Amino acid sequence: MNDVSVLKFGGTSVKSISRIQHVAEIIANQAGRKCVVVVSAMGDTTDHLYKMAKQCSTHPDKRELDLLLSTGEQVSISLLTLALQSRGIRSKSFTGAQIGILTDNVHSSARIKDINAERIRKALNEFDVVVVAGFQGLSDDGEVTTLGRGGSDTTAVALAVACGAPVCDIYTDVDGVYTADPNSISDAKLLDTISYDEVLEMARNGAQVLHPRSIELAQNYGITVRVRNTFKPEHQGTAIKGEKEVELAHRASGVAVDGNQGCITISGVPAELSASRKITELLLKDGITIDTISQVLDEKSNYKNILISIKYADVDQVSKISEALKDLCAARSVKSETNISRVSLIGVGLANEPKITGDLVANLEDAGIRVTHLSTSEMRISCFVPEHQAARASQLLHRRFIGSETIQFPRQRKEETRKQLSRIG
Amino acid sequence: MNDVSVLKFGGTSVKSISRIQHVAEIIANQAGRKCVVVVSAMGDTTDHLYKMAKQCSTHPDKRELDLLLSTGEQVSISLLTLALQSRGIRSKSFTGAQIGILTDNVHSSARIKDINAERIRKALNEFDVVVVAGFQGLSDDGEVTTLGRGGSDTTAVALAVACGAPVCDIYTDVDGVYTADPNSISDAKLLDTISYDEVLEMARNGAQVLHPRSIELAQNYGITVRVRNTFKPEHQGTAIKGEKEVELAHRASGVAVDGNQGCITISGVPAELSASRKITELLLKDGITIDTISQVLDEKSNYKNILISIKYADVDQVSKISEALKDLCAARSVKSETNISRVSLIGVGLANEPKITGDLVANLEDAGIRVTHLSTSEMRISCFVPEHQAARASQLLHRRFIGSETIQFPRQRKEETRKQLSRIG
Repeated sequence: MNDVSVLKFGGTSVKSISRIQHVAEIIANQAGRKCVVVVSAMGDTTDHLYKMAKQCSTHPDKRELDLLLSTGEQVSISLLTLALQSRGIRSKSFTGAQIGILTDNVHSSARIKDINAERIRKALNEFDVVVVAGFQGLSDDGEVTTLGRGGSDTTAVALAVACGAPVCDIYTDVDGVYTADPNSISDAKLLDTISYDEVLEMARNGAQVLHPRSIELAQNYGITVRVRNTFKPEHQGTAIKGEKEVELAHRASGVAVDGNQGCITISGVPAELSASRKITELLLKDGITIDTISQVLDEKSNYKNILISIKYADVDQVSKISEALKDLCAARSVKSETNISRVSLIGVGLANEPKITGDLVANLEDAGIRVTHLSTSEMRISCFVPEHQAARASQLLHRRFIGSETIQFPRQRKEETRKQLSRIG
Repeated sequence: MNDVSVLKFGGTSVKSISRIQHVAEIIANQAGRKCVVVVSAMGDTTDHLYKMAKQCSTHPDKRELDLLLSTGEQVSISLLTLALQSRGIRSKSFTGAQIGILTDNVHSSARIKDINAERIRKALNEFDVVVVAGFQGLSDDGEVTTLGRGGSDTTAVALAVACGAPVCDIYTDVDGVYTADPNSISDAKLLDTISYDEVLEMARNGAQVLHPRSIELAQNYGITVRVRNTFKPEHQGTAIKGEKEVELAHRASGVAVDGNQGCITISGVPAELSASRKITELLLKDGITIDTISQVLDEKSNYKNILISIKYADVDQVSKISEALKDLCAARSVKSETNISRVSLIGVGLANEPKITGDLVANLEDAGIRVTHLSTSEMRISCFVPEHQAARASQLLHRRFIGSETIQFPRQRKEETRKQLSRIG
C-alpha cells in the first residue's frame, strides 16, 4: 500500500463545520490516491468534556474518562466523512476500536500495541478515504482507551506504519518547523527538512512541536513526517526524516526556550540523610517535573547542600513544596527561585565542543544576562536565565550560532498545547 | 435477578451537570438494590449533532449518522457514572455495544434482536449500578446502530426483560399518565394504573406518552412500566400493566387529540385507473402518513372520487402534493383541506356500542362543531374536526364520557417530543 496518503488534521483544523468542509476539500484534491485520514476532536471539545467530568467527580475514574473523551473524535470522524460523501467521495469513518488499534490497558495514556493492518487494507479496498479517530484505541479487555498527549499524531504515524505508507502529513495551524519562534526571532526561517533527532531534542527542551512519541515512532519505522499548514495546503511545510536524508550544514541548528523553570536550594542537610528518593516522591506527587538533583557535601561541616532544578506550573506550589522539603531533609534553610527560563542551543555533537559552551556563556554575560546554571547533553547546551531575559538570550544565541543561515527549526504548534508552558525562541 | 431495579432517565432529566447529580441521588436512594440505569443524551444534544450532520451533508448517510448520534448517550453514561462513583457507589458505564445489545442492521431505526443477559449478569455481580446508553446497539456486522424514536424507552424495557426484572421505571418530566392534558382539561386526573392496550391506543392516536414499541415489548413480556417524575422521585407515578391487573371501571377511559390532520379529495379519476399504489408511494416519499384512502365509483359517469386522510407536517407540502396527485390520477380536480384535528375517545370495546358513536357525534354537532368524518377501531372512535374546535371537542367528550371519574389517561410527555404535532385533550 505504498500509494496510500496518510493525513492527520488537528483540533483547530476541524473546529467548525466550515473548517471540516475545508479539510474535505484538501482530501478531495489528493488526486485519486487512497487516503487514511486521522482527525482530532473539534476545537476545545476535549477540554469541555474534561471540565464536565471534573464537575461530576473530583478525581474522575480514568476508564470512564476515556469512554467520555473518545466521543470527541467519534463526532469529528462522522462529520468529516459526511462532508466527503457529499462530494461524492467513497469514504467511511472508523473509531479506534473499529479499525483495530489495539493498546495496553493504561487508561488516559495507553500505548499502541498493534494495529490490524488487514482491517485497514480491507477498508481501503472498499473505500477511497478511510477516516480514523485519533487519540483512541481498544484494550485487550475490550475497553476504550485514549493515548494521552500527542495521541492523534501517534495514531497517524502508527497507521502510516501499518499501511506501509512512507510519508505521514500532519496538518496543523502553522507553516511547518522553524529555527525559532518567528514571533520573537525576526530572522527565524521555515525549514524544508529536519532530522528526527533534532526535532526530538527540541521537543524535549520545551518546544511543543510534535509530541516525542510520534517522532520516535516515525524514526523507528523510517516514516517521513511532514508538518503542513491546513490553511495553506499548497505549501509543502517541513519534512522530518532520517539524518542521512537531512543536510546538516551547521552544528547548532535551533534555539528552544522552556519557561517556568525553578531552582530549590536546600542548605544544611545532615550528610548521612539519604534524601533523593523522598524528594523525588514529594515533587512528583505534586506534578512537578525534576530536571536535576545535585548534592554537594561540605566535608568540613559534614552537612550537604542540595540543588534541585524543576519545571513547575504554579509559583505558590513551589513555595509550599519548599517548606515541606525543609522538614523532609531536616535542613537548616531552603531557598526557592522561580521565574527562570531554560534557553537551549540544539545541534548534533554540540556538547562535545567545549569552545561553544564557553563562547555561549561569554556571549550572554557580556550582554548582562545572568546564567544561574548550565546543563548539557549530547545534542544541546542549556543555560538557565531569568525569565525576563529569556527572549533576549534566545535572540543572542540565534544570531551568534545560527544567524541568517538556512538551517531552521521548529516553532511551537499552537493547537493541542493546553498550557503554554514553553516556547521555542 | 428479580431484585434488580431498572430505571430510565430521559434527556431533560440529564440535561445539565446539576441534573445528572440529582439523578445520581435518586439512584443512591435505591436502598442497596442492584440497578440497571438507562440514560438518554443530555438535553438537546441529539438535535445539535443532527443539525451539524445536515450541515456536512444534505442527505447524511445513516451509518455515519448513527455513529455520530450514539456519542450523545456515551457522554451521559460516563458523566452519570462519575457522579455515582463520587458518591462511593460501585458503578460502571456501558455503551449499547459493550453491554451486548444486538440489533438488526437498519441504521437509524434498528430493532433489538437480542441482549447478552450473561454480560449484564456479570456486570451486576461486579458493580452495584450498571449504567447503559439508551437508543443504541450493535449490528451483526459490528456497526453502531440507533433505535430511532422511543429508542431509550425500548432499551430500558428490553434490559428489564433480559434481567428478569418485573418493573421498569421510566423517569421523565411529568407526574405520570393522565386522562387528558391537564393544561386543556381542568378535571384531568393522574392515573395510578392503566393497561397496555389503552396506553397503546392513546399513543397510536396522537398521544406521545411512551413510544408504542416500548409498550408492546413490555406487554409481550409482562413488564410493568412505571412513568414517574424525575423531579418528584417520592411519587409513585403511573403503572402500566396487563388488563387483568387494571380495574376497568368505564368503557371510555381517555381522550386523545392528534393535530395536523388533512384531507385530499381527488375528483373525476378514470374508473379504470389503479391509483392506490402510486398515491401511497407519492405520499410516503414526502414523509406524509396516510390514515385512510377511500375510493367511490360514480357508475353513471364511470369516474371515481378518491378521499385520502393524511397526517402532514407542512401546509405548503400538502398543496404541492395535491398538484402532483392531480397529474398522477388524470383527475378533473383536487381539493385539499388542512388544519383538521382528530379527536379520539379511547376505551375497551367502545366501537361495538353504536349508541356511543351516535351520542358522540350528536354531542359535538349540538355544540356547533363540524365533524368532517369519522373512523373507528376496536378501542376507539375518532372524529375529524376543524383544528380550532379540537380543544372544545375534547372537553365535551371528556365531560360526557369520562366526567370527573377516577379512571384517567396519559398526557403527552414533553421530553423526546421533537415536533409537537399532537396532544392528548
